Amino acid sequence: MDSPVTSRIRFSLPFWREKFLEVLYMSAVVDDTPLSQSATVDKEAVQPFPRSEKIYIEGTRPDIKVPMRQISQTDTAGLTGSHSNPNVTVYDTSGIYTDPTAKIDLREGLPSIRGAWIEERNDTEVLGDLTSVYGRLRANDPQLAHLHFKKNRRPRKAKPGKNVSQMHYARAGIVTPEMEYIAIRENQRAVNFEEYGHGRIHEGDSLGASIPETITPEFVRQEVAMGRAIIPANINHPEIEPMIIGRNFLVKINANIGNSAVTSSIEEEVEKMTWSTRWGGDTIMDLSTGKNIHETREWIIRNSPVPIGTVPIYQALEKVDGAAEELTWQIFRDTLIEQAEQGVDYFTIHAGVRLPYVPLAASRMTGIVSRGGSIMAKWCLAHHRESFLYEHFEDICEIMKAYDVSFSLGDGLRPGSIADANDAAQFAELETLGELTKVAWQHDIQTMIEGPGHVPMHLIKENMDKQIDVCGEAPFYTLGPLTTDIAPGYDHITSAIGAAMIGWYGTAMLCYVTPKEHLGLPDKDDVKEGIITYKIAAHAADLAKGHPGSQLRDNALSKARFEFRWEDQFDLSLDPDRARDFHDQTLPKEGHKSAHFCSMCGPKFCSMKISQEVRDYADSTDEKHSQATLERGMEEKAKEFRERGGSIYHET
Amino acid sequence: MDSPVTSRIRFSLPFWREKFLEVLYMSAVVDDTPLSQSATVDKEAVQPFPRSEKIYIEGTRPDIKVPMRQISQTDTAGLTGSHSNPNVTVYDTSGIYTDPTAKIDLREGLPSIRGAWIEERNDTEVLGDLTSVYGRLRANDPQLAHLHFKKNRRPRKAKPGKNVSQMHYARAGIVTPEMEYIAIRENQRAVNFEEYGHGRIHEGDSLGASIPETITPEFVRQEVAMGRAIIPANINHPEIEPMIIGRNFLVKINANIGNSAVTSSIEEEVEKMTWSTRWGGDTIMDLSTGKNIHETREWIIRNSPVPIGTVPIYQALEKVDGAAEELTWQIFRDTLIEQAEQGVDYFTIHAGVRLPYVPLAASRMTGIVSRGGSIMAKWCLAHHRESFLYEHFEDICEIMKAYDVSFSLGDGLRPGSIADANDAAQFAELETLGELTKVAWQHDIQTMIEGPGHVPMHLIKENMDKQIDVCGEAPFYTLGPLTTDIAPGYDHITSAIGAAMIGWYGTAMLCYVTPKEHLGLPDKDDVKEGIITYKIAAHAADLAKGHPGSQLRDNALSKARFEFRWEDQFDLSLDPDRARDFHDQTLPKEGHKSAHFCSMCGPKFCSMKISQEVRDYADSTDEKHSQATLERGMEEKAKEFRERGGSIYHET
Repeated sequence: MDSPVTSRIRFSLPFWREKFLEVLYMSAVVDDTPLSQSATVDKEAVQPFPRSEKIYIEGTRPDIKVPMRQISQTDTAGLTGSHSNPNVTVYDTSGIYTDPTAKIDLREGLPSIRGAWIEERNDTEVLGDLTSVYGRLRANDPQLAHLHFKKNRRPRKAKPGKNVSQMHYARAGIVTPEMEYIAIRENQRAVNFEEYGHGRIHEGDSLGASIPETITPEFVRQEVAMGRAIIPANINHPEIEPMIIGRNFLVKINANIGNSAVTSSIEEEVEKMTWSTRWGGDTIMDLSTGKNIHETREWIIRNSPVPIGTVPIYQALEKVDGAAEELTWQIFRDTLIEQAEQGVDYFTIHAGVRLPYVPLAASRMTGIVSRGGSIMAKWCLAHHRESFLYEHFEDICEIMKAYDVSFSLGDGLRPGSIADANDAAQFAELETLGELTKVAWQHDIQTMIEGPGHVPMHLIKENMDKQIDVCGEAPFYTLGPLTTDIAPGYDHITSAIGAAMIGWYGTAMLCYVTPKEHLGLPDKDDVKEGIITYKIAAHAADLAKGHPGSQLRDNALSKARFEFRWEDQFDLSLDPDRARDFHDQTLPKEGHKSAHFCSMCGPKFCSMKISQEVRDYADSTDEKHSQATLERGMEEKAKEFRERGGSIYHET
Repeated sequence: MDSPVTSRIRFSLPFWREKFLEVLYMSAVVDDTPLSQSATVDKEAVQPFPRSEKIYIEGTRPDIKVPMRQISQTDTAGLTGSHSNPNVTVYDTSGIYTDPTAKIDLREGLPSIRGAWIEERNDTEVLGDLTSVYGRLRANDPQLAHLHFKKNRRPRKAKPGKNVSQMHYARAGIVTPEMEYIAIRENQRAVNFEEYGHGRIHEGDSLGASIPETITPEFVRQEVAMGRAIIPANINHPEIEPMIIGRNFLVKINANIGNSAVTSSIEEEVEKMTWSTRWGGDTIMDLSTGKNIHETREWIIRNSPVPIGTVPIYQALEKVDGAAEELTWQIFRDTLIEQAEQGVDYFTIHAGVRLPYVPLAASRMTGIVSRGGSIMAKWCLAHHRESFLYEHFEDICEIMKAYDVSFSLGDGLRPGSIADANDAAQFAELETLGELTKVAWQHDIQTMIEGPGHVPMHLIKENMDKQIDVCGEAPFYTLGPLTTDIAPGYDHITSAIGAAMIGWYGTAMLCYVTPKEHLGLPDKDDVKEGIITYKIAAHAADLAKGHPGSQLRDNALSKARFEFRWEDQFDLSLDPDRARDFHDQTLPKEGHKSAHFCSMCGPKFCSMKISQEVRDYADSTDEKHSQATLERGMEEKAKEFRERGGSIYHET
């Protein structure tokens, strides 16, 4: 998922160059300590969530330890008695950063969760040096020493002739530890629906998906083998907590980071990553451009608990000083290897922007809005040749399978406006992406497909249906889509509408959009706003599809709300900080949050009490469904009600 | 659309009473000038929109003058020549407050737009005094003199035996000036699609709606006659700019105001109204409770250019000091007349909360969450009697038709959580609302139906389909629905997803939700955030339904975006202030907004130029659609491209 052209623009402006250099200069004056000694984690990213415990569910072997967040609840102090409320376990993308017992040190990187699993498969080898020419140049440049990640990590690669992709194992019938890890993770411990209270669980309408009641390791294997799901997990990124992207699993979201270009910002990029994963980013795309992106990427990967995606053509373009027509297969190839050996988990590759499709964008309102698509269109125009990405697709596959990098086949011709939605250019490219998916699958390469963009609501489903059809159910990964163009400043919302819908229809991962889309650079608040908005879209989609267990959190929160357990309502929410803050803006702090509503204040209506009265009656008879009985009961209740003072309102 | 119980709660807290009284005391000390002398309009509400002109389109008679906002655009200074861009006309709910030539004086109220139309129908009379006992008490209380609206307005009522509803006229074959006004307004001057550029206009999928290419006054009449649309337009609110709510018209949004309880806040309530209509509120519901709500309402109505809705049971409850069981038909009736004679345009009436339905809420997760529904459920339980609203429904109709107040049949049993969506209680009430709709229609009373609430995406359509079925296509008016419960603090977003979808499916008006929903009182920023979010949902629905002309604004904005006409992009957006602010946070001000992108800066990709080159080629041949020709063209272009330096990147 590459950035829109308009976002990119701002980073190229001389104004910004200057500003960044200024910052660099200032920091250089103040502190010339190497990053490998000075880097520290963002304080905000390591705060534990309120009344949450980090738990680890062990699998069939002791080194499978799946992290989850367990939120504790207070007791219900009801009108007719008290009862306790169960802990709620939620999916957790934040890594060890929210584990107060973990030792966090950016300079050391994260522990290697998958190291032993990779080694014991005995199909990889540790190389003596980096394979990529560029990678070696950077590693050996003494002027870059202050930027280097401390450890001189040696890359791992498949042994000659081996394919180390999860898809390859899956097709060989092997259930990897990654697959078991994912099965445990996806189930979210939703073993006992009953204890979560009396609320109905809706069945969902998965629109043709095949979501089982319980995710088993074998189911994960099958889905990966079929190509319906991918596990982005480069053998050089053993630090990740494995996750899966597929229509029959929880809908995932991606957050984009990486727009700065100079030294001083490496720490900022790592901070963006920890911030994004804290709030729920399932994967991170590093879209860095400019200088030192190789080193920036190294720091991000070594510290990221989630898969990292990139758009390698961005870095390749930097290597030819921005002259797209000078791009060559050799430069691109070296870039792929460079990044694969660092541990990038998936590559966006715009191999579907074929020469004959470029003129199809002629009649568009907004032309080609994908940066990667524009670069390739320019190359095709300049050389009047078929795209080298398309022509070298099988060569790319050979690299991918040696490291288990997944494809994210880029939609370089996605629509950039409502007017251009679902047009000939877009769908021509999609057909090619379907063709390339099948080529990738011949090589057992895990593959997902990127999708639009800007699409009015009634044309969204056609995108999904066509993608499922031509790409053989390979996971779809969409940017929104934005459902109208008229609200810059609110495009997280215009796109969340489309994202929720396409998620329901079958999209496996949603690329977030921040409020700054089309206008400027997102700051930390914007990133959080974008992520929470997309967690909402993904969760709404999970509910609609009927993912088992998804509704438990809704039910727990609604029960807390109904019972005026304010703290529980906050803690169960996607953003406890904001919920608490908004509440405190209106009501005073402690008293009103701990007290039961009914004992809180003066005359008011207690909806809990009325419901309890109605419930008591319903429980007291076997003939619940008889209208006559209900009416008789009502009469009794009315009498009792009047006798007790006829007041549902309480005076304190 | 009444407020959730949980919102109401906060206003009853002694804490708030105290706080409000404190404020009252402070203001009383500072200023005891009567409001009729001191009231001033909110400065922020009377700022004209940037580069926008208030225009008035005249109808067949000179006193039909339909306001619109006309946004001017700058010229395109393209690579291959320049051209001008047409003005874009948009729907305008802000009244004369954004007309710099208008004289604004809250103390005088708005001009009477419909006065002559009402009078010339010769079926109403001006009463000597208020009919309602309570209204007279308030009018004659000298202690309230400082709160009275200056003019001693005398109410208007139908002559004995007359029905003055727009539906009654429509069914008699009369096209009223209101209907003609609305026809002009709905068309938004979208006469010439061509001049808006080359973008495709999608057909839309109206899912069974009957949206004509052009709205004629006769079409408006037919829709109102059939009951498929309503024109909320009390004869005592001649100040409104007539608007329509119906599935075959633009989707409308409502904003709720009115939560304060004391003197000092009357001006604040008027400020909330002008603020809400500025940003796009099509109607306003005044949900005031507590003291002086009669006077607050008078000030709001006299100054509101949009229809005002209320929930009369709220005020009736105040009259019995909050003891729901003491409510009587007489008190409620007097309240209806009191409010009808002030000019309330629609009443939310929870006549569908019938006695036998109350036990159906027994097994719910969140019981009864509608305040109006709870009040009526309590009354039914206390008396073990059928709801007096249901039993007196025809008596209510008699009042409605004498003033042309429209029904908004309240959904007192709407679900308050995902768990409770589409349950027996909700649908039992909906059936009754359908039955009551037909009774109202026998009296030629305009009627819309309120809907949920909290509903997961896959269950939304069932709500719409069932409502259309049982309510005979009467307009649906929904609160969201929220598509998940887990994001308090972001419920404008959880609900905008549902609102956009149900709007597409056929809902005619969407009741907004602010970010503070479930947590606290919305401030001015929250109100604006809620309104813009709902304008997005409504517009996304209009696009999906294929409302003629809706896409013009999207196309104009996208064209501006593609051509880097920043100022136009801001001015065409729903919130020009935020768009400009977000841009300015990243880029310096004037230079970067006026300059054409291509002359702005250093090496970068110019997507406009590449598209222009592709277009030039496409224009230069008659055989546009031949693949061979396209490829030949590409070859030519490649040559030309290389000859010109092979650079789409420009150096300054």
